[in-house]
Amino acid sequence: MPTPASSATAPLVVAMGDPAGVGPEIVAKAWSARDERGLPPFVAVGDPRAVALVWNGPVAPVRDLHEALAVFDRALPILPVSGGGEITPGVPDTEGARGALASLETAAGVAQSGAARALVTGPVSKAQLYSIGFTHPGQTEFVAERCGVSADNAVMLLAGPSLRVVPITTHIALAQVPGALSIELVLVKARAVVRGLRKNFGIARPRLAFAGLNPHAGEGGALGREEIEILEPAIAILQAEGVDAVGPLAADTMFHPRARERYDVAICCYHDQALVPLKTIHFDEGVNFTLGLPIVRTSPDHGTAFAIAGRDAAHPGAMIAAIVMAHQAAERRFATVSTT
Amino acid sequence: MPTPASSATAPLVVAMGDPAGVGPEIVAKAWSARDERGLPPFVAVGDPRAVALVWNGPVAPVRDLHEALAVFDRALPILPVSGGGEITPGVPDTEGARGALASLETAAGVAQSGAARALVTGPVSKAQLYSIGFTHPGQTEFVAERCGVSADNAVMLLAGPSLRVVPITTHIALAQVPGALSIELVLVKARAVVRGLRKNFGIARPRLAFAGLNPHAGEGGALGREEIEILEPAIAILQAEGVDAVGPLAADTMFHPRARERYDVAICCYHDQALVPLKTIHFDEGVNFTLGLPIVRTSPDHGTAFAIAGRDAAHPGAMIAAIVMAHQAAERRFATVSTT
Repeated sequence: MPTPASSATAPLVVAMGDPAGVGPEIVAKAWSARDERGLPPFVAVGDPRAVALVWNGPVAPVRDLHEALAVFDRALPILPVSGGGEITPGVPDTEGARGALASLETAAGVAQSGAARALVTGPVSKAQLYSIGFTHPGQTEFVAERCGVSADNAVMLLAGPSLRVVPITTHIALAQVPGALSIELVLVKARAVVRGLRKNFGIARPRLAFAGLNPHAGEGGALGREEIEILEPAIAILQAEGVDAVGPLAADTMFHPRARERYDVAICCYHDQALVPLKTIHFDEGVNFTLGLPIVRTSPDHGTAFAIAGRDAAHPGAMIAAIVMAHQAAERRFATVSTT
Repeated sequence: MPTPASSATAPLVVAMGDPAGVGPEIVAKAWSARDERGLPPFVAVGDPRAVALVWNGPVAPVRDLHEALAVFDRALPILPVSGGGEITPGVPDTEGARGALASLETAAGVAQSGAARALVTGPVSKAQLYSIGFTHPGQTEFVAERCGVSADNAVMLLAGPSLRVVPITTHIALAQVPGALSIELVLVKARAVVRGLRKNFGIARPRLAFAGLNPHAGEGGALGREEIEILEPAIAILQAEGVDAVGPLAADTMFHPRARERYDVAICCYHDQALVPLKTIHFDEGVNFTLGLPIVRTSPDHGTAFAIAGRDAAHPGAMIAAIVMAHQAAERRFATVSTT
C-alpha cells in the first residue's frame, strides 16, 4: 500500500472492530459529527458491508490513505478488509472475528508504518477472537507486540473529561490482586504514566494520586498491610525521583469532584477500583489510551454491545472522544519532534 | 429521665460524636437549616461547650425531650453529656472519646426507650474509641448490641439521592474478601435488605442488583469463580423466594445514571466496591442507614474530619440528609404501625 510520509496532515486510522458489534455504527456516526465536533480526517478499516447494514450515509472504499484524505469531506473512507462471511448485526461469529482481527492487523500496520498519525481501535469480542486462536489477552497486548513493546510496559490509561485512572493490575481475579502487587510493578507502571502523560497529554509534571488497596487505605495496617509494605515504599521511591506522588489514599474519598482536582491521574490497585469511578461518571465518553507505545493508540472504553447492534441505538461519544484524544496526542508528539 | 410516649411528635435524638471533630458544627448547622430544609425537631446529645467553641448560635441545655421540643424553634436543644476535659477542635483526646461514647450510649438509650423517634449518630474516631477500651468495630455494632441484634443482621446501607449500596463484607482487608463471601452470608444480607427497604423506605418489592466480585463479573469463570460458585446460586435462591434480584453484574458498568435507574439497591461484595461509587457521586450527602434494628438509626457517611474541625468549613449536607432520612423512615414505621 502506498503510504504518505508521516506528517501532521496524515489521517488517523480507525479499526472498526467486530462487524456484528456497534463498532461500524459508531465509526459512521463519528464521521457524521466530524464538522460539529471538529474531528481530524480518519480512515476506517473493515468490511464496508458492516457499515452499509446499519447506516445510510455515504461510504467510499479507498485503496490508500491519500484517497482517504481526498474523500473524507464527502464520504466515510473505508480501507476494505473482508471477513468473507455473512454479517448479522448483534450476532457474532468466527468469520466476523477473522474480519475484526484482519482490520486490527491492517490498521496497526498502517499506524506503525507512520502512514497514519494514530491508531484508534473499535470494540472486539474477546471470546470470539479466542475462538479463532487469538492468543493475546486483548487488543492492547496485540498492538504492543506489533510495536515491539512488552505487555508490562504498555500501560492502560482510562480517561474521561474530569478523571484519568490507571489500574496497576488489570484482567485477573480479585483474589489474585494482593499477590500480584509489588513495589517493582508499581514503579514500572508509575514511571510509564509519568512519561506518557508528558508525551501525550502535555502535562510537564503530572500529579499522581495512589489509591490504597484496602478499606480506608488499610487504616494504619489494621485492615491490611499492602499499603505499608508495597505502596508507601513505592511512593517514597517515586518522590525521591522527583515525581509528584501522593497516597496511598482511601479509595472511597478520592473520586468526588473536589478530590479529583488535586491530581492528574489516579493510580489504582485493580480493575474495578479504576473502572468503577471512571465509568460511573464518564460512561459515554471514556477513552482507553495505551501509554508506552511508539505510536498513539486509543479505543472507546466500551464493548461490542451486541445487544443493541443494528438498532441505531449506539452512542458514538466514546468513539468521538477516542478520535479527539488520539488526534491531540499526535499533535503534541509531532510538535515535540518538530521543535527538538 | 422523663420520656414522652413514642409518637409521631417525639423528637429525633442526635449523638454529636467526637467533640473535637466536625460533629458539633454540622449538628448546629443542621439546626440553623431547620426551616429551609424542613427538618423535624431533634435534640443533640453531647457537650454544649463543643458547640459553643465552633458556633455562635443559640444553644439550650435541656433536661429531657419535652424541654427539647419546647425550645427547638428558638435554640439548639442539647442534652448535656460532659466529657470532662478541655476541648480543642481538631485535636482528639481520650477525654473526648469518653464524651463521644457517653453521648452515643445516652442517645441510643433514649432511642431504644422510644422517647425519641429515631437515632442519628455523628462521626467518632475509632482509633480514639479503641484507645479507651471500646471493643466494637464501630458505632453500628454497638447500637446493634444495645438493641439485642447480632452484628451480622445489622446491615449497613449507604444512601444518596440517586444511589443506595450495601457492602456484603465491610471493614476487612481486601485479601480476606473472597474467603469471607458465602452463599449464606449473601442470603442473610439480601433478605435483611429486602425487609429493610420495605420497612424504612416504603419500597414494596425492592429491585436488588448484585455486583460481581471480579473484573467483568468473572467473564464466565475466566477471571474468577466466585460469581459462579457463590453469587449466582444465592441470587437463584432469592429469585425463587420471589425477590427481584439481578446479577452478578460487571461492577464497572452498573453505576452510571441510566444503569442506576434499573435497581433500588446495589449489593456489593466489599467496602470500596460500594463506597467508591456512592461517595464519587454523593460525597456531601451520603447517609449510613442501619437496616435490621428495632429502632431507626442513621449517620452521616463521613468521618470526624479533624483536619477542618473548628474552621467553619464543614458541610452539613450529610448530617441534614441523615436527619431527613431517619425522619422519613420513622414516619413510615409509625404509619405502618398505625394502620395495621
